[in-house]
Amino acid sequence: MKIIRLLAFVPFALAAALALPTVVRDVSAQAPDFATLEATQNAANGKPGPRVVPGRSIPVPNTASPELRAMIAAPYRIPNWDANPKNAAEWKQLIDRLAAAGAAAQQGVREKLGVSMETSAIGGVKVFILSPKQIPPANRNRLLVNVHGGGYVYNPGEAGTGEAALMAAYGGFKVISIDYRMPPDFPYPAAMDDAMAVWQEAVKLQDPRNMAIFGTSTGGGMTLAMILRAKKEGLPLPAAIAPGTPWSDLTETGDTYKTNEWVDNVLVSYDGYLRHAAELYANGHNLKDPQLSPIYGDFTGFPPAILTSGTRDLFLSLTVLTHRKLRRAGVEAELQVFEGMSHAQYNFDPFVPETKEVFTEIASFFDRHLGK
Amino acid sequence: MKIIRLLAFVPFALAAALALPTVVRDVSAQAPDFATLEATQNAANGKPGPRVVPGRSIPVPNTASPELRAMIAAPYRIPNWDANPKNAAEWKQLIDRLAAAGAAAQQGVREKLGVSMETSAIGGVKVFILSPKQIPPANRNRLLVNVHGGGYVYNPGEAGTGEAALMAAYGGFKVISIDYRMPPDFPYPAAMDDAMAVWQEAVKLQDPRNMAIFGTSTGGGMTLAMILRAKKEGLPLPAAIAPGTPWSDLTETGDTYKTNEWVDNVLVSYDGYLRHAAELYANGHNLKDPQLSPIYGDFTGFPPAILTSGTRDLFLSLTVLTHRKLRRAGVEAELQVFEGMSHAQYNFDPFVPETKEVFTEIASFFDRHLGK
Repeated sequence: MKIIRLLAFVPFALAAALALPTVVRDVSAQAPDFATLEATQNAANGKPGPRVVPGRSIPVPNTASPELRAMIAAPYRIPNWDANPKNAAEWKQLIDRLAAAGAAAQQGVREKLGVSMETSAIGGVKVFILSPKQIPPANRNRLLVNVHGGGYVYNPGEAGTGEAALMAAYGGFKVISIDYRMPPDFPYPAAMDDAMAVWQEAVKLQDPRNMAIFGTSTGGGMTLAMILRAKKEGLPLPAAIAPGTPWSDLTETGDTYKTNEWVDNVLVSYDGYLRHAAELYANGHNLKDPQLSPIYGDFTGFPPAILTSGTRDLFLSLTVLTHRKLRRAGVEAELQVFEGMSHAQYNFDPFVPETKEVFTEIASFFDRHLGK
Repeated sequence: MKIIRLLAFVPFALAAALALPTVVRDVSAQAPDFATLEATQNAANGKPGPRVVPGRSIPVPNTASPELRAMIAAPYRIPNWDANPKNAAEWKQLIDRLAAAGAAAQQGVREKLGVSMETSAIGGVKVFILSPKQIPPANRNRLLVNVHGGGYVYNPGEAGTGEAALMAAYGGFKVISIDYRMPPDFPYPAAMDDAMAVWQEAVKLQDPRNMAIFGTSTGGGMTLAMILRAKKEGLPLPAAIAPGTPWSDLTETGDTYKTNEWVDNVLVSYDGYLRHAAELYANGHNLKDPQLSPIYGDFTGFPPAILTSGTRDLFLSLTVLTHRKLRRAGVEAELQVFEGMSHAQYNFDPFVPETKEVFTEIASFFDRHLGK
């Protein structure tokens, strides 16, 4: 019986084999018809266990804006996603090269958005302060703090100011962007020490009830870890937070690490650079320490939070798990998920309509929760 | 150059072919290593276009409750997901068989949940009225209306009362569950006519400001279509709605129809029964008519809404697209997405912790928006 069932798949197997070199270029041309897939998939998923899915070519959806569709269609980001530098020198070379390109792009973005930027230091830490052309009256006594993303390795300096510029422009806020120290020279806890040093001084510049902390990816994880540490150290909390698709768990935990593996065209797979970046940053510390993976911390008493992700995001699970954990702790927490979006793509291009939508929603959430 | 690149894939292709019969049982045993996948995937996704993903075995995540994990591990639901009856008699036979099993299960569920049920008629339409053992004082003057799911074909009669029972039990509300007419005998607009006939009379039983409409899948789509029609006909609107993973578009539209195809173990693929059910229900009407696919309607003036989906849900895109469209129309709308959940699985087993969480969240949302 078993042999007969197995033999039944052989013609399909051989066809697949002969087709595979072409499949790599265009799966759809050789895709088996529905009846074939139905039979093989029913057989492969007929018992409790892992979900077996066939190789596929997934079209660009027509349910996103044309600008976002172009982003969804974009190739994998090489070498960003699968970088695996062999030593500190190689890491630095890669980081510097990507940061130089990022910084150059940011200058043009600020000009188009009408956002100005100055460099400064707060609590001994290098920061950028981004301001829109005009701050609306409601936001004159408000101040935001941004923690940039990049897996604790990418986006030092001006390259890390993109999200702050978007919030300054679309939200009409003054934003402090923290240029925290990173590996390979400065592993954990340098980044968190810098972020907290800035927070401790920033609350003297403005009433923390008029302030929010936000950040995406690594910046989202750090936002959550900052609240955990502020609670522990008895520091004031901000009135709201916006952890965007937060790297709230540095271990490979969460279903979309697998369901969206090879689908997300930004991060692609945990086995790309993420695994290496997590190890480089943790520097031997337990990855499940709540200061590294805040999902393992206690969210009781957290400020209202708005979380953002996309349906193709490798961190969609991290986002919804964080959202659920906040809700279970009794925290007011909202979730927005964007069609077809891979990890953090709302930060990539200021002129994609969904980008403006993300930041307008976050700004509106802040407006409802921040004092004036 | 092209030939060399193609030849490089041949050994992998042949290995895959020889392995495929086994792959169908257990992909992971034969899965290519990361370096191989990295190379083939980078090559296949090196130009703008569709996303090419390899066949995979996706493990059951450890980030859901043990009870939900068992549901995630469950095999595809045959024949529910891929039923393709050839004529009205075959449809009826299938529907009756599934409905009998569903009704039998519901009786046990109500007993365990302490929910009572009576049959009645409102506006000439058969309804079930479900009540918890005790209605909390805050809910004594509140009344909910539920529209069941099932692709406009499944769950006639008592089989369609499961979600109403869950809301009665976990929310402490009295719930009217509408046993609307369905194909093959009664295609569109019978279901909507019945739902509206009940709504028109129900608002005489209770102040609509103390009422909400909710439903999942087809019931979520109908909830949205009911608001569109109530607006058009000048009927009172409820104070809140809860469209759960709504079938808000009967055409195959939305990215997760493809990204979660073969991943969702409930609906599995649009090319299963959904395509046939949509055609049977529409009966020649335009599938994009907002009364069939409410996503094409005008959401301005809608009551506050809470939407629910899961990361593996084939309708995750429909849910987030509906959420975004509500927000763009200025409607207060919340979104909750559950880890690893396929389509509507929160309705399947009352004793899965995530089920209780879903309904507790919806009940709390209703409590914030309904008058007393």
